[in-house]
Amino acid sequence: MNSKYVKYSYETLKKFCNDSFKKIGFNAKETNIIADVLLLSDLYGIESHGMQRLVRYHKGIEKGLIKLGNKPEVVFQTPLSAVVDGKDGMGQVISHYAMDLAIKKAKKSGVGIVSVKNSNHYGIAGFYTKMATDQGLIGMCFTNSESIMVPTYGKKAMLGSNPIAISVPANPHPFLFDSSTTVITRGKLEIYNKKEEELKYGWAINKTGAVSTNAAEVLANISNHEGGGILPLGGASEETGGHKGYGYGMICEIFSSILSQGFTSNKTMKNGKSGICHGFIAINPNMFGNPEDIKNHFSTFLQELRDSPKADGQDRVYTHGEKEIEAYEDRIKNGIYININTLKEMFDFANFVKLNPSKYFGKVKFEENKVKSAY
Amino acid sequence: MNSKYVKYSYETLKKFCNDSFKKIGFNAKETNIIADVLLLSDLYGIESHGMQRLVRYHKGIEKGLIKLGNKPEVVFQTPLSAVVDGKDGMGQVISHYAMDLAIKKAKKSGVGIVSVKNSNHYGIAGFYTKMATDQGLIGMCFTNSESIMVPTYGKKAMLGSNPIAISVPANPHPFLFDSSTTVITRGKLEIYNKKEEELKYGWAINKTGAVSTNAAEVLANISNHEGGGILPLGGASEETGGHKGYGYGMICEIFSSILSQGFTSNKTMKNGKSGICHGFIAINPNMFGNPEDIKNHFSTFLQELRDSPKADGQDRVYTHGEKEIEAYEDRIKNGIYININTLKEMFDFANFVKLNPSKYFGKVKFEENKVKSAY
Repeated sequence: MNSKYVKYSYETLKKFCNDSFKKIGFNAKETNIIADVLLLSDLYGIESHGMQRLVRYHKGIEKGLIKLGNKPEVVFQTPLSAVVDGKDGMGQVISHYAMDLAIKKAKKSGVGIVSVKNSNHYGIAGFYTKMATDQGLIGMCFTNSESIMVPTYGKKAMLGSNPIAISVPANPHPFLFDSSTTVITRGKLEIYNKKEEELKYGWAINKTGAVSTNAAEVLANISNHEGGGILPLGGASEETGGHKGYGYGMICEIFSSILSQGFTSNKTMKNGKSGICHGFIAINPNMFGNPEDIKNHFSTFLQELRDSPKADGQDRVYTHGEKEIEAYEDRIKNGIYININTLKEMFDFANFVKLNPSKYFGKVKFEENKVKSAY
Repeated sequence: MNSKYVKYSYETLKKFCNDSFKKIGFNAKETNIIADVLLLSDLYGIESHGMQRLVRYHKGIEKGLIKLGNKPEVVFQTPLSAVVDGKDGMGQVISHYAMDLAIKKAKKSGVGIVSVKNSNHYGIAGFYTKMATDQGLIGMCFTNSESIMVPTYGKKAMLGSNPIAISVPANPHPFLFDSSTTVITRGKLEIYNKKEEELKYGWAINKTGAVSTNAAEVLANISNHEGGGILPLGGASEETGGHKGYGYGMICEIFSSILSQGFTSNKTMKNGKSGICHGFIAINPNMFGNPEDIKNHFSTFLQELRDSPKADGQDRVYTHGEKEIEAYEDRIKNGIYININTLKEMFDFANFVKLNPSKYFGKVKFEENKVKSAY
């Protein structure tokens, strides 16, 4: 690793985010949502989707992909469902609105399914599923994104990294699963690019369709729409299950771009428009019995998994969300490490919104940045 | 491949299945369901879940895991949901009943979610999702099964192969995705065992937690509850995404064993009881707009995928279900290949139900079968 990290408190970063987004016109509720989504990722230890992503929102606003001031609008609705037009607004604000709508429907009718079109990148999917689970519901979330996944036996990216997230109430903490349907995310490509580390074999292919371990090459091919991309979970062939990851990616499209009749991943991020689509599902467990009984039943299984025999050399079998919750507890108390290249991007964003970054982060001397952002 | 195959017409196999299950007390509707589920798998070219699985039902009935005559019963219900107790009956009959209930709810209210406990193995998940899609709905299906998936960093199988299936209306044919959340299925282990072929590296681990390429060893470890099993989609580590396949397996448990409060995979197939659980979801696309518009929108994307540039050496990018539909058309016309070891099992089943197999399949001389069934 040739990158340096600096540590800041959660409070400092939160104040910086709140102040920054307020400066460009978001109200208090909206700035809180945006800051919470970004920082939950860093608190969970998911560096790729936290402050590291700020540059994407910065550039999105600068280029007009994200239209400040536009509010999401329901364009079709039933007691159980809705289609929301995000009007090219900030993805986090649109998504919070849409999941909130799904939750209200699920609380009233049992199920809420909301499909969203014309949005922007929304941060970590798990933020929105957790909104449902914080209220005792099962939350599910899907999003498409700029094409980066090459379908099995293809050589052009046609689907996004298309994460699927699900949260379910459990003790001592909820089950939180949130993962791209690709082997890795674009965020991880960016991190490897910043660190100047080689990708693992089987993660990505270049524009010729051959496996590449060069993050910069793959990112450049993607950004220039030259071909190649990341492989679906399961890798390059049916033998290793690549068609399965490709199938899960399709599930994401179905609940996001298909039901909303928005842009499929291969049409997003073109001609000055993101067109990202999302899907949000909230399910009330009281449709199946006593929610406490169901929660206890699930918690028992999760404990059995954690207690199950460990492979040689391993000391824990994790259930999904455990690592994130432990990271959260550590970082809230001890602070969040920020990559120096990411900090530079935060300084740039501060300048863009006309804030003084040193007020939050002190004086920082940056070395010349040899690693170019993909945006 | 050291196994021989013999070919029979669909009609011959269907008559054999119908007559066999009628002989042990199923009525005409039930025998049709069972035969249709089994043979749809062979017609789709999914040998692992077709006639190859008959031995499992044979042994299940013989051992009393499958209780003949028991009918499924709704034990909890709302307009959108139900919990069904399968009463240890035949999985296909229970599952057809449960998906039919989900479809009725979705047609009336928009969504139907039915969670099933105390069932048995139900064949291919895709049969039930297709029931919904044949009626213009999105169908989803989940099932747990006897523990065979070892969670990431564990060495004891705690989840089943836990397939997820989804079908969505499209032109010229529906999108049909149906896949285990493991790298391979137990069915494929059985096929490799019958063929006496080596497993690929990274598919399975033995009881010590080490990767094994020996299907017989892995199957024996599983059957004897000694440890080891199949790896989740993504393989043995988080680096390759194994925790993602493990997460998808958990989604299966949530909609099957958790919402129904039935047996989680690790508790199934013990003490003379299967206890397999399923989940069925039907979603009416009319909750999101004009179903024809949504169907056309999806069909356009599927065609774009099929038309996208191919990797060197490949001539097609498939969308899910295409291979199965092409196999179906071929096999309906030209017949179905049956492995000679599977045919032997079919003869044994015929004898068990007191039918003369030669009436259907002619006189067959079997060599001594050196490959033992795992059941």
